[in-house]
Amino acid sequence: MLKLYEFSTSGNCYKIRLLLTQLEIPFERIEIDITKGESRTPEFLQKNPNGKIPTLEIEPGKYLSESNAVLFYLSEGTKFLPTDKWEKAQVMQWLFFEQYSHEPYIATSRYWISILGKAKEYQAEIKQKQAGGYAALNVMEKHLENHQFFVGNSYTIADICLFAYTHVADEGGFNLNQFPAIQNWIERVKNQPLYRSILR
Amino acid sequence: MLKLYEFSTSGNCYKIRLLLTQLEIPFERIEIDITKGESRTPEFLQKNPNGKIPTLEIEPGKYLSESNAVLFYLSEGTKFLPTDKWEKAQVMQWLFFEQYSHEPYIATSRYWISILGKAKEYQAEIKQKQAGGYAALNVMEKHLENHQFFVGNSYTIADICLFAYTHVADEGGFNLNQFPAIQNWIERVKNQPLYRSILR
Repeated sequence: MLKLYEFSTSGNCYKIRLLLTQLEIPFERIEIDITKGESRTPEFLQKNPNGKIPTLEIEPGKYLSESNAVLFYLSEGTKFLPTDKWEKAQVMQWLFFEQYSHEPYIATSRYWISILGKAKEYQAEIKQKQAGGYAALNVMEKHLENHQFFVGNSYTIADICLFAYTHVADEGGFNLNQFPAIQNWIERVKNQPLYRSILR
Repeated sequence: MLKLYEFSTSGNCYKIRLLLTQLEIPFERIEIDITKGESRTPEFLQKNPNGKIPTLEIEPGKYLSESNAVLFYLSEGTKFLPTDKWEKAQVMQWLFFEQYSHEPYIATSRYWISILGKAKEYQAEIKQKQAGGYAALNVMEKHLENHQFFVGNSYTIADICLFAYTHVADEGGFNLNQFPAIQNWIERVKNQPLYRSILR
């Protein structure tokens, strides 16, 4: 059985749980407490030398890291990744957009505020992340104003990947009230078959 | 003909030039001076709403952004992207590693020091980027100690993507002397057929 090494409140880990659930693939969850350095132990570095979660154990001793690489691997050949070359390229574009222009702002702020509970200690850093996070949300809003989903009018790993931290952006201090298209898209994602919440 | 909107000293843009050259695909280059805000004009935001280069115009009005998404798109079906599912997943893993754990440290420092020429003004920021950059180089060094290339013993877009900023890491204040495996790999990449330098 697949083993998911994860920190369960992490959106990057939730992406994998959501896709695996929607693919009806069973998996075992192993909690790695990153706030206690558990992803940096010599034992864990054997699994992922970059010391990060999620890491998926595909079969004994065979590990894949980077949440969006795992989404790609699991979705190939399923309805969650288009086969059309141009649509697949656009999925990839949104996956890299998420890791470069979205996650480092919104997920990082959420980590300081809601996971560590240290909004005061990280006040200056959180303030620095606001502009970048809102820029990413603006790019998403503009796209969703005339698209039901990110690519090709159907729900793909581009949606799963961007949903993970966007739907909990308020936990990072981002207000979604000014983004009606994003709010409607969040509802569409939540209405997908076999949807599961980040809380479980 | 493909049109590459680029800032030519950017490693992210160089990745695309290198692959297109090795694929023997002709392309037109259009310089966008990011230091003058040229990727943020209303006209350019029509091409890439995220306001970043490189952006590749595949055909009139059809644009693809995110350097590693472009590498993926161009390399599918060529020797630069494995067809084996597991090897392809590992390529993806390194592509996301590069954009999350490598580029934000090494490329950003190089931008401040060697592109803007403002090492003094950005002294504090550059210092903050050192640990992350060296951590990424250590992950690469460890992998290259027993691999000729990043995935599957052959030269792929994983190598192209990591090469772009690694071989000019000194321009970002990173010393490669302590990384012999990386240095040897850089030579192997430079010896690939149809290699072109970042300078042209």
